Order: sequence, then C-alpha cells, then structure tokens
Amino acid sequence: MTTGRETGLQRWLAFVERKDPSALPALVAEQAVFRSPAVHAPQPGRALVVGYLSAAMLVIGPTLRYHRTWQRDTGAILEFSATVGDREVQGVDIIEWDETGLIVDFTVMIRPLSALHAVITEMAARLSPPS
Amino acid sequence: MTTGRETGLQRWLAFVERKDPSALPALVAEQAVFRSPAVHAPQPGRALVVGYLSAAMLVIGPTLRYHRTWQRDTGAILEFSATVGDREVQGVDIIEWDETGLIVDFTVMIRPLSALHAVITEMAARLSPPS
Repeated sequence: MTTGRETGLQRWLAFVERKDPSALPALVAEQAVFRSPAVHAPQPGRALVVGYLSAAMLVIGPTLRYHRTWQRDTGAILEFSATVGDREVQGVDIIEWDETGLIVDFTVMIRPLSALHAVITEMAARLSPPS
Repeated sequence: MTTGRETGLQRWLAFVERKDPSALPALVAEQAVFRSPAVHAPQPGRALVVGYLSAAMLVIGPTLRYHRTWQRDTGAILEFSATVGDREVQGVDIIEWDETGLIVDFTVMIRPLSALHAVITEMAARLSPPS
C-alpha cells in the first residue's frame, strides 16, 4: 500500500485499540461510503459512516479481535471475530483509504446467519433515534 | 504467496472460468474445511467441501464475477458479485492453500441479508438428497 494508506490502516488499528468514538470523524473522508452486512443500499457521507461505525463499536467492539489481514494497493481486509449475545460472529472489514489515509469505503460482511441476525438486532437498538 | 499457493489460485480461477464440476475434487485437500455463510459449524473433509462448492457453482456460478483480490502468504480473498433470483449478491471467498496448491480452507461471507437468504434457499434445494 502507499504510505498514506498504510497510515490509514495504522490509525484504524489504533482507534480499535482505544475505542474512543470522538476520534472517529477524523479518520473518515467526507465522501466515504458504508456498506452494511444487512442492507443493500450503500450509506453515503461521513455522518452516516461515523454513525454506523460508532454503533458497531458498541455492539462488536467490546469483544472484537482481529485475525488474518490481507493488503492491496488501495486498502486492506481485516478478518475479525466477536461475541454478540450468545452468538459467535466472524466477519471481515473491507476498508479502502484515499491517498491521505482517510477511509473512503468501508464494507462489512458477517457469518453465519445466526450471528448476522444477532448483530442486526443489536445495531438496530443503537441506531434508532431515542423515543 | 509461495509458488504452490499461487498455482492454487490460478487453478481456482481457471476452474471458475470453465465451471467443470468433475475438475473440483482434484483442487481440494483431503482434510479441507468449508465454512459456509449460513451455518456456524465448519464442514470438514474433501467430500463435503466439494459438495458445497459444487452446489454454490450451480447457484452463483452462472452470474459469478470476481472483482477485488487480496493476497497474503498462505491464501487470498476474492470479492465477488452475482445475481440469485432478483437479489444482487456481494461476497468474499477466503481461500487458503497448502504448499502443493490444494485448497485447505474455504470460507464464504455474503451481504446483504436479503442476498444471504436467497442463496440459502437455493443452496438448500441443491444440497437436499433427492426424495
């Protein structure tokens, strides 16, 4: 990867280590897109991307562990595991950075089906506006 | 990747191009494991791995297109898209090869949820024993 993108990966891993949500907006490009494991439509723009990633950090972050990593010129795939409720979650974060190291595309996939259902239920509780 | 594993990737891509199911067993190690997008339990052994990959080729193969590829020392991730029924499927094949180029681990993840449901329905029809 180019230097800016390597920096992006390092900053992401440091963020996941510290889990400080206030640090997230500075990692994400204004035109970034989030592609959720649940919904087909891409979620465009920094505010939505930060919203999804913040909710995901609440749901998956506490038990998140990264395993295998694959890199290419513009981004990386990070394989993760986590526990949500009584479900073991396996997934991948597919992240692309721009040349300055900002996230421009963040795709998440999760297996198996039971784990995806558990994550969707917990994410929905975090993403709903308070009533 | 090491030479044997690069050969494994090339042989897999050639298989996907030709889609000849009789060529599949020769690509898979006896102790291989398949990890489906649907079910938590790993499916061990060449016969099960070949069975799942053969069914997947019937369901996804006709419209399968590979996009981004990531490589590391022991394997690769291939991002794919396909159409199943009226659903657009996006997924990754996470493949590990042994040093002779045989598949030892094959994990599939699919998004979004609607696409995973469509794939599960179609795969079940192919994997059920004839009544």
